[in-house]
Amino acid sequence: MTYKAPLNDLRFALHTHAQLPQILALPKSAGLDDETVNAILDEAAKFAETLLAETNRQGDLNGAKLVNGKVVCDPVIANAFNEFRDAGWVGLRASPDFDGQGLPMTVAAACEEMWCSANLAFSLLPMLTLGAFEALHHHASEAVQQKFMAKMANGEWSGTMNLTEPQAGSDLAQVAAKAKPLGDDTYAITGQKIFITWGDHELVDNIVHLVLARLPDAPAGVKGISLFAVPKYWVEEDGSLGAFNHAQAVSLEHKLGIHASPTCVMSFEESRGYLVGEAGRGLNCMFTMMNHARLGVGIEGHAVAERAYQHALAYAHERVQSRAIQSDSIAPVAIIEHPDVCRMLLQQKATLEAQRAVYLKAAAALDVAESHPVPDVQKQAQALLDFLIPIVKGWSTENGTTLTNLGMQVFGGMGFIEETGAAQYVRDVRITAIYEGTNGIQALDFIGRKTAANGGAVAQYLLDEGRALAAKLPSDSPLVTQLNQALDLAAESVQYVLAQFAANTPNNAAAGSLAYLMQFGFTLGAIEMARAYLAAGQALENESEQVLGEDFYRHKQHTVRAYFDLVLPQVLGLHQQVIRSADSVLDYPAAALAL
Amino acid sequence: MTYKAPLNDLRFALHTHAQLPQILALPKSAGLDDETVNAILDEAAKFAETLLAETNRQGDLNGAKLVNGKVVCDPVIANAFNEFRDAGWVGLRASPDFDGQGLPMTVAAACEEMWCSANLAFSLLPMLTLGAFEALHHHASEAVQQKFMAKMANGEWSGTMNLTEPQAGSDLAQVAAKAKPLGDDTYAITGQKIFITWGDHELVDNIVHLVLARLPDAPAGVKGISLFAVPKYWVEEDGSLGAFNHAQAVSLEHKLGIHASPTCVMSFEESRGYLVGEAGRGLNCMFTMMNHARLGVGIEGHAVAERAYQHALAYAHERVQSRAIQSDSIAPVAIIEHPDVCRMLLQQKATLEAQRAVYLKAAAALDVAESHPVPDVQKQAQALLDFLIPIVKGWSTENGTTLTNLGMQVFGGMGFIEETGAAQYVRDVRITAIYEGTNGIQALDFIGRKTAANGGAVAQYLLDEGRALAAKLPSDSPLVTQLNQALDLAAESVQYVLAQFAANTPNNAAAGSLAYLMQFGFTLGAIEMARAYLAAGQALENESEQVLGEDFYRHKQHTVRAYFDLVLPQVLGLHQQVIRSADSVLDYPAAALAL
Repeated sequence: MTYKAPLNDLRFALHTHAQLPQILALPKSAGLDDETVNAILDEAAKFAETLLAETNRQGDLNGAKLVNGKVVCDPVIANAFNEFRDAGWVGLRASPDFDGQGLPMTVAAACEEMWCSANLAFSLLPMLTLGAFEALHHHASEAVQQKFMAKMANGEWSGTMNLTEPQAGSDLAQVAAKAKPLGDDTYAITGQKIFITWGDHELVDNIVHLVLARLPDAPAGVKGISLFAVPKYWVEEDGSLGAFNHAQAVSLEHKLGIHASPTCVMSFEESRGYLVGEAGRGLNCMFTMMNHARLGVGIEGHAVAERAYQHALAYAHERVQSRAIQSDSIAPVAIIEHPDVCRMLLQQKATLEAQRAVYLKAAAALDVAESHPVPDVQKQAQALLDFLIPIVKGWSTENGTTLTNLGMQVFGGMGFIEETGAAQYVRDVRITAIYEGTNGIQALDFIGRKTAANGGAVAQYLLDEGRALAAKLPSDSPLVTQLNQALDLAAESVQYVLAQFAANTPNNAAAGSLAYLMQFGFTLGAIEMARAYLAAGQALENESEQVLGEDFYRHKQHTVRAYFDLVLPQVLGLHQQVIRSADSVLDYPAAALAL
Repeated sequence: MTYKAPLNDLRFALHTHAQLPQILALPKSAGLDDETVNAILDEAAKFAETLLAETNRQGDLNGAKLVNGKVVCDPVIANAFNEFRDAGWVGLRASPDFDGQGLPMTVAAACEEMWCSANLAFSLLPMLTLGAFEALHHHASEAVQQKFMAKMANGEWSGTMNLTEPQAGSDLAQVAAKAKPLGDDTYAITGQKIFITWGDHELVDNIVHLVLARLPDAPAGVKGISLFAVPKYWVEEDGSLGAFNHAQAVSLEHKLGIHASPTCVMSFEESRGYLVGEAGRGLNCMFTMMNHARLGVGIEGHAVAERAYQHALAYAHERVQSRAIQSDSIAPVAIIEHPDVCRMLLQQKATLEAQRAVYLKAAAALDVAESHPVPDVQKQAQALLDFLIPIVKGWSTENGTTLTNLGMQVFGGMGFIEETGAAQYVRDVRITAIYEGTNGIQALDFIGRKTAANGGAVAQYLLDEGRALAAKLPSDSPLVTQLNQALDLAAESVQYVLAQFAANTPNNAAAGSLAYLMQFGFTLGAIEMARAYLAAGQALENESEQVLGEDFYRHKQHTVRAYFDLVLPQVLGLHQQVIRSADSVLDYPAAALAL
């Protein structure tokens, strides 16, 4: 269960799919060069592979517990966080104005893949902290920012997001927690929140909770929700910690996976906090971070599957079982020589490389949208990012379950035994398809705000990119036909979705919405894999460009072919599901689904 | 987490897909009529729904443990087994010559679906016992049969199958356990076996272990393996129990699921036993039961998914969240009204009904093959059964993971919490794709012995059935086009597989073998769903045939449409994977998968 950071593929993907040189030319990248990026990736890899990866199984075995009102984590987790903080990793992409390192998301995303592969449950602590940091950065008053943010970026304190209540899961309009003005600039927050990741723990001195709640006389629905920053311990004017603020975990959930991370039921009892952003604009404040958070969850789903793949690959080399069917020898062989086992590994590897390409493309769009000097370029990048987010989140995490299960299958009977470790990846990854908006919610977002609302313009832009790449591929390559067919089918699905919204029958599109999201994910994967094929071909023609060694580029071209043969064909069925689901689903007699 | 046996659909499927009247006309069904079958199903449903279903969560929470050398099960499991045995369920399909009830497999299979839905881990105890019973029935000497079998059929004792050793998982040629002749008709068996389901426990007075081992001077490979019956306690000539026979669990595995069932590392130390069948023919003796066992595992995968579906359906009615997107009202609705949630439920329901049709078709073929008076009919049924087995096993259990995960997804965040119960189905079902021959092994069997070895004759026979059904469907129905397209693609895949074996390049077929198995599974599901559509249509035209109520038949036709729209389209991609995988997989450079 060792982990080896896929540094070569990360480097290739950063240049090919995220166009790193352009990211390094952004104002926010001032002082950063390729060499520094490489050094950062190397250091991150070292940390992930050694200290962090080794905590994964122990953290699963000895999950977080609530003992006498305190959340207790395994010592290896606490120790890993100390080292992580001391090495300066928490604030890698946080603003330098508040003790962060200010790295572009593109580079930070590559590091986040490594943290998530090494220990998903652990990685949620810095990820949530940065989410809260970003919310404060965009919306809090300067006084509040000064009070909290630097200590969050350097990892002295952590941050949480308190949205969900039992009756308000996906539908935040139902939030009921209350906020009472105390007459000064503070409020007393009271309510219970559920599913709060790293909601309470002893790894840091203080925790800054961002809490959605309603002011007195707030209107019903989303417009009555405001956001508050509520510290676990009150922070005095001099920055010292004051009294306990009655923000605490009252129980922890028993979960299928990510055991090392406490998932808390949080209770706030007249807990003092500050308003963040305008009253009644709480949801908007949360939406600011949604792209970051959903991109992060997509990376999580991808990263756990990457580790599951590596684990299965190692076993497939080591395990000797059964003769090769197309051989005269009866000697048993390593199972990687059995075609179906090799197929499973390639399906994993090819999907993972496509996912890495897509999430880094999205991360690059985020950086350009945030800091490109030309507003029009920013705007275009923002539209691209908005479109890519539900794909990265939904597609990578649906695949997460498929791929980790393939990993387990390679182990045969040993895969079902917990000590083997394959089961943990299957368990851990499962949450990524659910939280931060279930994939069903992502799919709704994708058909509506991301496709119909812009008349399919961004979808068309990406399909045009695909056409241009197809035109550059060797004309006799089967990749051309496969890619063009996938682009045709995707275009048909886009038209179908647009037509439903135009006809005011969005339910028709909703019935096939997950299939549409998945179809576009696999198609976008093919577009980026075609880009990779061409980039690798260019390197193969020009020895000076072979910075990763000739073999890397040859292998990449083979992996692209594997993606087109083993993975991309799924779009054929998905396309049918997009256009056919409406009748079956919407005409289905309710009585046939009655209890 | 209640369970409601799908009695109406079972009855419909027994008549439509298993052609129950023909089964009841077999010699082995003497004395059995439709009314009795209905009464048996009703009683089985009652037991499954009440007593057994209620043990499922407790058995998961308090799994089997090894305490001071004894395997300890939760009392609810022990109690359930007592009731199950006392009600006479263990030997339902065991030969009446040995205290069994001798019911046809077709009827027993319907009951087994209910046991497996109610508590998969529990159901393995009678299932394994019957497997051992069958092996003895076919291969043991009369003396051995008289000694063991009646007490196995009535549940006083249980049985196990001891095949796997650490170095011999799928490849039984590597079995190393030793058998030493003791000079009388007994042998001393020594060795260690792993993954032995219900290998040891205190729920019965004695356990009959069937153990693969090698006689002295046996040749290497499979021809040196013999089968032995080794009781936990020696059985004296008068039937009384003698000394402990040094057959015991030395440890239990920690598994992802099926916690209530002990999965044992078994140690045999000079344990006395009888040879079963001829020396050196041990594997053949095991193969006798393989169709039963693999059919059983297919039913397991299906049954767990059925319960997960019911669980999700209930929650989708109960959980109110978010407004309907195609509505003027902002009031939140039950989530079943959201199209994507309804789509998930229909995908589950439609797949489940197709799977039920296919496993009952296979069970019927088994009965006909075993006891039809006309040898040619028997032979044809045996060929059909042999072909269907890897589909029932592989297709239903691959779907098992997909469907239980859909069930969990319906729950959103609650699905990830163990108390909800959705996670248990995901965990439990996972083993079914692995044991009794991984699905990769099933797929190899399917391309080779089941397709190529008979020149595709059985495949063609089934596709012809499909053509005939397509011709009977209303000609303006979209089902016709969809079914014919699926049949065309399946025929192409069969031809591809045959061509590879003819060209002596079976590796090419092996690379896409799982896709081929899945493609044929979904196609066969469509064939049987078309049959269901027609049968339902006939009932709708003729009130006297509406024994399940008019609504049932209307709903069935809707579910068939859902199968064709939401499930069947997967064959498009699978077909491409069948014919495209070879190049990508077999040409892939080994160095690119090096560690």
